[in-house]
Amino acid sequence: IPAQAAPPLPSWNEGPTKSAIVEFVEKVTKKGSPDFVPENQRIATFDNDGTLWAEQPVYFQLIYAIDQVKKMAPEHPEWKTEEPFASVLKGDMKNVIASGKEGLMKILAATHANMTAEKFRANVSDWLKTARHPKTGRPFTEMVYQPQLELLDYLRANGFKTFIVSGGGVDFMRVFAEKTYGIPPDQVIGSSLKAKYEVKDGKPIIIKLPEINLVDDKEGKPVGIHQYIGQRPIFAAGNSDGDYQMLEWTTAGAGPRFGIILHHTDAEREWAYDRESHVGKLDKALDDAGKKGWTVIDMQNDWKTVFPPAKQ
Amino acid sequence: IPAQAAPPLPSWNEGPTKSAIVEFVEKVTKKGSPDFVPENQRIATFDNDGTLWAEQPVYFQLIYAIDQVKKMAPEHPEWKTEEPFASVLKGDMKNVIASGKEGLMKILAATHANMTAEKFRANVSDWLKTARHPKTGRPFTEMVYQPQLELLDYLRANGFKTFIVSGGGVDFMRVFAEKTYGIPPDQVIGSSLKAKYEVKDGKPIIIKLPEINLVDDKEGKPVGIHQYIGQRPIFAAGNSDGDYQMLEWTTAGAGPRFGIILHHTDAEREWAYDRESHVGKLDKALDDAGKKGWTVIDMQNDWKTVFPPAKQ
Ligand SMILES: [Ca+2]
Ligand SMILES: [Ca+2]
Repeated sequence: IPAQAAPPLPSWNEGPTKSAIVEFVEKVTKKGSPDFVPENQRIATFDNDGTLWAEQPVYFQLIYAIDQVKKMAPEHPEWKTEEPFASVLKGDMKNVIASGKEGLMKILAATHANMTAEKFRANVSDWLKTARHPKTGRPFTEMVYQPQLELLDYLRANGFKTFIVSGGGVDFMRVFAEKTYGIPPDQVIGSSLKAKYEVKDGKPIIIKLPEINLVDDKEGKPVGIHQYIGQRPIFAAGNSDGDYQMLEWTTAGAGPRFGIILHHTDAEREWAYDRESHVGKLDKALDDAGKKGWTVIDMQNDWKTVFPPAKQ
Repeated sequence: IPAQAAPPLPSWNEGPTKSAIVEFVEKVTKKGSPDFVPENQRIATFDNDGTLWAEQPVYFQLIYAIDQVKKMAPEHPEWKTEEPFASVLKGDMKNVIASGKEGLMKILAATHANMTAEKFRANVSDWLKTARHPKTGRPFTEMVYQPQLELLDYLRANGFKTFIVSGGGVDFMRVFAEKTYGIPPDQVIGSSLKAKYEVKDGKPIIIKLPEINLVDDKEGKPVGIHQYIGQRPIFAAGNSDGDYQMLEWTTAGAGPRFGIILHHTDAEREWAYDRESHVGKLDKALDDAGKKGWTVIDMQNDWKTVFPPAKQ
């Protein structure tokens, strides 16, 4: 008799949400069951911002970009008068956002491009060590959801291959995804810039170019899944309308499928937001979850804990 | 005392090439060794055409495209006079090749795009079942190199994650890579077309567009590795100048690295070609292999067997 395994998903409250997840995993892994899915087809995709880690008050990657602009400012005296940099330096986020796509592209180019992939990785890694969340004071890699970490582990223990499919920058997420989520770099799919290979002074380098390669959001998510994973997931989790198409694509396939929407309902332990939010807007996907058969996680009721205990 | 494992690489002749491979694998997997590489960094990338399967008399994917044009011809009476289709239908390959990039793009658009990813997959799968190699009469998936299948297995048994990084079409290779090489779709990187997601008559589909997304050849290989794998391999294998940059990028990294060039030297069991070949041209990479420290496989001398035994 094998030792009894610890019950799965300890940070999830008992109830229909947890039961639905466990029932799904049990039926697709049960040999001989009509719902059995071979291991090489057990593909699970997770959005990142607002699904695996928090996204308030703004996307953490935007906080990174702003911190980098501030750090680089001494070498760019022209930024004192050049928008959107001047507003970033003054902390006038309203003006930064008002600069629109063009402004954000300038910030992206300055902080994410025109450098080697190696340099970018080192910058993000350094930032993660010292940067702290403005509300909780915790490292950003501790602003992850404990129940989701358990869900990832549970799926992998049951032969699933877990992927991130996120609108966030792929090179940004790859710096911490393996250590934080147990998801290796090649299983992280995200928005990306074009890149170029060259040999400079005898040293081969990859340079990040200030040009969009893939916007891995909305219709871009099934496209990213097609290009990077090459097969349709049977399990997908998201938290916003940006995940609508990923969930639709995943759950429209034949055989057993599972779609999850994380609904941020917990103003006390995390944040409560949905239809009107400037990040993670959840409107159409919430309306359609019922008819699409997607499971809506009610953070306040379904989760015993939100964040993992502090490491120090 | 554990049962003794079968000796690795049985289809490789004893000699410096096999020894170099085995020594490399043993040193990077030996805990405590200065050359030890943790499992999550044991990334191995293989070119496909001419490295894992044959590529003579022409790339097999081109044979697929030509067969598809012939199959589709009855629905396209205009092709009788429209180039390059007219030449394809007459079997005038010289004229087809003379049609250049523009002509090949037309063939690609007709046979690889403007259809769902699902339909394309089914077409390739059907073709693989019945198509036979023009010289050997064998299914194309049996035109693979037995010693390389053993090398893939050996690397995986030693904790390597094996990837294909090929100039060939990613959607084409993904149809057979898992069954043939044990490499799942998400570990296959290749040239690709852009794609689009849409819901048609209530059914979500991915459509392959007649527009290049990535040319995964030459400088495109390290770029593909960056975008899809997100870390530098420690082991790379190729057979042509198209692999130069992948080998350069791989072996220029710090710590132990291994680069392989398969030299087609066996006119009797396979084909002998290199500097002047219209496929798999191997010139600069052969010249530089010595100074770059790449191991050149001499097919005739290093391989006991070339192809696996026939399945039927
Ligand atoms: Ca999200
Ligand atoms: Ca090749």
